Amino acid sequence: MIGIVGGSGDFGQGLAERLRRIGEEVCIGSRTPRDDFLSNEEASRRSEVVFLSVPPGGVAEMSRGLRDVLAGRIVVSVAAPIVFRDGQAGAEPGELSLAEITAVAAPEARVVAGFHTVSARALADPDVPLDEDVLLAGDDAEAKEIVAGLAARLVEGRAVDCGRLEVARWLETLTAVLLNVNRRYKTNAGVRVTGLSE
Amino acid sequence: MIGIVGGSGDFGQGLAERLRRIGEEVCIGSRTPRDDFLSNEEASRRSEVVFLSVPPGGVAEMSRGLRDVLAGRIVVSVAAPIVFRDGQAGAEPGELSLAEITAVAAPEARVVAGFHTVSARALADPDVPLDEDVLLAGDDAEAKEIVAGLAARLVEGRAVDCGRLEVARWLETLTAVLLNVNRRYKTNAGVRVTGLSE
Repeated sequence: MIGIVGGSGDFGQGLAERLRRIGEEVCIGSRTPRDDFLSNEEASRRSEVVFLSVPPGGVAEMSRGLRDVLAGRIVVSVAAPIVFRDGQAGAEPGELSLAEITAVAAPEARVVAGFHTVSARALADPDVPLDEDVLLAGDDAEAKEIVAGLAARLVEGRAVDCGRLEVARWLETLTAVLLNVNRRYKTNAGVRVTGLSE
Repeated sequence: MIGIVGGSGDFGQGLAERLRRIGEEVCIGSRTPRDDFLSNEEASRRSEVVFLSVPPGGVAEMSRGLRDVLAGRIVVSVAAPIVFRDGQAGAEPGELSLAEITAVAAPEARVVAGFHTVSARALADPDVPLDEDVLLAGDDAEAKEIVAGLAARLVEGRAVDCGRLEVARWLETLTAVLLNVNRRYKTNAGVRVTGLSE
C-alpha cells in the first residue's frame, strides 16, 4: 500500500490516480477525513511507502505528529519551500531542506526527497505521459532504490539518484525555477538529466 | 567580440574554443595576463558580451573592480556558490545570487545569469556536442535574448528563459545537484527542460 499524506490537493490526487493506473494500491490521508480520505495517521499506518504532500509551512509539525507511525516506513518528501510574491514564484529555503526537517522530526523514518520537478498540474492529468525524469536524494540507499523503482514506472524518463539527503536543499528550490518557466512558456515543465549513459 | 573574464580555467577555455568554432571572436582575460591572455579589464573593454567566469568568492570584488568598464555591456554570470566538503559538492548560497551581487556591484552592467548546468568538463571537450539546454535568468530582456541566441548555437538543446534575475538564486545551486549526479554516474550531466512546446 502507498499512502499520500495531505493528498487531497492536485499533487496528491494526480499521484494517486497515476499510481493506481500502474497497479498500486493507494490510500489518501487528509486533515479532514471524509469519503475517500482517511486521517493522515491512518493512511500512514496502512502504507509501506508514504508520500508527504504537505505545504512547506506544515512539514515540521506534520512530521512531528506522525513521528511514531512513520518509524521504519519509507517517506517520500515532495515539499518545496515555495512562496509567491506579486504573483511570481520564488523560494525561501531555510538552513535545512524540508526533507531534512522531516528526517529530524521523525528520525526513524526512511526519508527520500524527490518529485520536486514534477508539476502538480501535469500529474493531475493522468492521460498525458510525463516526459521527464524524477530526481531523488536520500541517505537510505535501499529506500531510495524502492522509490526509484516506483518513480521510473510513473514517468517516461528515469529515476536519477542525486546523492545524499542534503542535496534536497538544491533540489527543492529547483521547483521555483520551473514555476517561473511555466509562467513564461504557459506550460508544465519538467526536467531530464542528460549525459547519463546507461 | 566576446570576452571571458577569469577565462584561464576549464570552463573559460572550453567556452572560448566552442565560441570560436561557431565563428565568434573571443578574447580571454586573466588576473595574470600572458601569452594569449589579456588583463580582465582589457578583455572586458574589447567585448560586447562579457562572460564572468570567476570563483564564487571573487565575484563581488571582480565586479566592483570592473564596474566602469562593464557599464552598458552584457555580462553573463556563470558562477555558482559551490563548496566541497569531504570531497562532496554542496552549495552555500548567500541571500543574493552571485549574479545579483554582480548587478549590485556593477549597476550599469546588463547582467544575465546562465550556463550553471553546463559542465566545465563537458565544455572542455569541444568535439563532443552538448546534449542539453542552457537555462537563463535576467531582468534585461534584450540582453537575455542576445545571450539566448549565443547559447542556442552552443548546445543541441535550446536556451530556456527562466525569468527574472532573482531566479538565479535557484539556478546557481542546481550546479550542486549536477555535481553530485556526476559523482554518482561518473559523467558530465546536463539538463533539458521538457514540456516546452515550440
